[in-house]
Amino acid sequence: MVNPFLIEVTRGSLIESRHRGGVAIVDADGTPVLSLGDVERRVYPRSAVKAIQALPLVESGIADRFGLSDVEIALTCASHSGEEKHAATAASILAKAGRDASCLECGAHWPSGEAANRALAATGGQPSALHNNCSGKHSGFICLSCGLDEDPKGYVTAQHLVQKTVRRVLEDLTGAPHTEAERGTDGCSIPTYAIPLSALALGFARFGTGDGLSGERRIAAGRIRRAVAQHPFMVAGTDRFDTKLMECLGERAFVKSGAEGVYCATLPELGYGIALKIDDGTPRASAVVMATLIQHLLSLSDVERTQVEALARPVLKNWNGIEVGHVQPGAALLRSFPKRYDS
Amino acid sequence: MVNPFLIEVTRGSLIESRHRGGVAIVDADGTPVLSLGDVERRVYPRSAVKAIQALPLVESGIADRFGLSDVEIALTCASHSGEEKHAATAASILAKAGRDASCLECGAHWPSGEAANRALAATGGQPSALHNNCSGKHSGFICLSCGLDEDPKGYVTAQHLVQKTVRRVLEDLTGAPHTEAERGTDGCSIPTYAIPLSALALGFARFGTGDGLSGERRIAAGRIRRAVAQHPFMVAGTDRFDTKLMECLGERAFVKSGAEGVYCATLPELGYGIALKIDDGTPRASAVVMATLIQHLLSLSDVERTQVEALARPVLKNWNGIEVGHVQPGAALLRSFPKRYDS
Repeated sequence: MVNPFLIEVTRGSLIESRHRGGVAIVDADGTPVLSLGDVERRVYPRSAVKAIQALPLVESGIADRFGLSDVEIALTCASHSGEEKHAATAASILAKAGRDASCLECGAHWPSGEAANRALAATGGQPSALHNNCSGKHSGFICLSCGLDEDPKGYVTAQHLVQKTVRRVLEDLTGAPHTEAERGTDGCSIPTYAIPLSALALGFARFGTGDGLSGERRIAAGRIRRAVAQHPFMVAGTDRFDTKLMECLGERAFVKSGAEGVYCATLPELGYGIALKIDDGTPRASAVVMATLIQHLLSLSDVERTQVEALARPVLKNWNGIEVGHVQPGAALLRSFPKRYDS
Repeated sequence: MVNPFLIEVTRGSLIESRHRGGVAIVDADGTPVLSLGDVERRVYPRSAVKAIQALPLVESGIADRFGLSDVEIALTCASHSGEEKHAATAASILAKAGRDASCLECGAHWPSGEAANRALAATGGQPSALHNNCSGKHSGFICLSCGLDEDPKGYVTAQHLVQKTVRRVLEDLTGAPHTEAERGTDGCSIPTYAIPLSALALGFARFGTGDGLSGERRIAAGRIRRAVAQHPFMVAGTDRFDTKLMECLGERAFVKSGAEGVYCATLPELGYGIALKIDDGTPRASAVVMATLIQHLLSLSDVERTQVEALARPVLKNWNGIEVGHVQPGAALLRSFPKRYDS
């Protein structure tokens, strides 16, 4: 099955590039709401499932035992830009577990945010694991390990109690077995398991509604969603799509990007979970698909609509600030929505 | 027509992402050698045609009149990383025409090379138009304008003598009309005209062989090819694909990347011109297609083969240096080559 063109990139009057992909939207029963392309294809969710991976830390009561704040909980779900506040918050999470950055096993890299990157270089600094975009999640894993009385050393390996616990929660929510045969290694060295796009969407429908979850887990999911909605800067950063969208919509949408063109979301008021993957792995395309879906699925205020529409058709400008084209939804994506008579 | 999968990106034992595209290889008569996908689809060549755009400067004798060196001529064909030597060479080209960076109309941006970017930030510097990856080409345009006794002001516009001259050379070499209707604006503000992939390949077959070119143009093409072969650092930079490939192969291959997944090349000893475009515009894919084509088309020494093979199947490592996957040619690309019995 050839996935449809979801996104076009224009220049002048022509389409210069195109992106194919698949989209699965389901409710918490797993009933399909919208399927585009092959929704049974297995994809590595990568960083898109960080909020689900944070559930054990919160539902176990360990986050509370260590006194983690909402800002810190939001960072455990982050692919952050390595800005000063992100790195400092990761350090404070570790400190609450009596640990420090030397325990992080995610590897170091220069801040992914351009301004933060140059700011660090300007001070003569070097990047540490705290600047790794996954440092919040890893700090959370270390808290979880300490809270379970398990030595955090090796917490990134599939055999460690932390990853076994996280994997079980992912299997529970998505209903998809996470098998050795479909295990890859993520950028930050933890396992990532390929599962069908439809199962990933189901996981987010449950995460957003709490349906089918135990009492503690349902409460934990709500707490994580609210923490992120209140501190959307923590999950991404300056001028990032996730941050901008949730600054605009608050608790109406929880969205999270993953590497290689994966995007997941839940729209709690509709009970929907969303998972999408761009075939070629390009983030500019996955972000615009997500904004387009939200634009058509939610009933938006004028202010919300203006902001979401800008995210759904970003202007491409060149180095002189001249408008040269757009990234925009293709016909296959636009055709997939029922006509709306309220707009 | 759905273009074939040319490139797969693996993670663990699975293919995580895939890239489709088209490839045209023709000889200087325009006879197809290899066609994959829709080779009549119009693509914006973007920066891939910079060497052809440099022809008027050299064939007119203006480069010699201003005393441009081979290092400087190589930079006029560059999409460079903004390293110190690149910026300094652009400034020296301008000085030879009695001009300076204030004449550049390409816009300023931070160096695209990560180390150069941070080095500039570390000194408290700000980027200028000299750091723009196209500053060498633009400096060459300004020389051309001055040599033609035309005020360089506005040299980026389609109506200026510089762009009219460049457009005529592009039409001559590719045989394809460059029309207003298919004109886009490039990142550096000059016009870019969409033409069929096969015509782009023909342009490079002629550029590599000199067949069908006037005496001056044939000599100019040879001089540009040799200048780049002798100074491959100038056309790209540290750890860049174009630079590494030509450091390895010298005059055996002239290759040039363009934005949005375009790659062009000529293999003069075979008389071939190559043009390819990845549908989704991703550079990791276009580079691996080009390396794969060269690996299969040229008869390589052991040293050359080792280096080209590494470029044709780059290892993906994560932040801890762990190997997580590969970017590699897909079956459709590998199947397209006749079996070789000498290897």
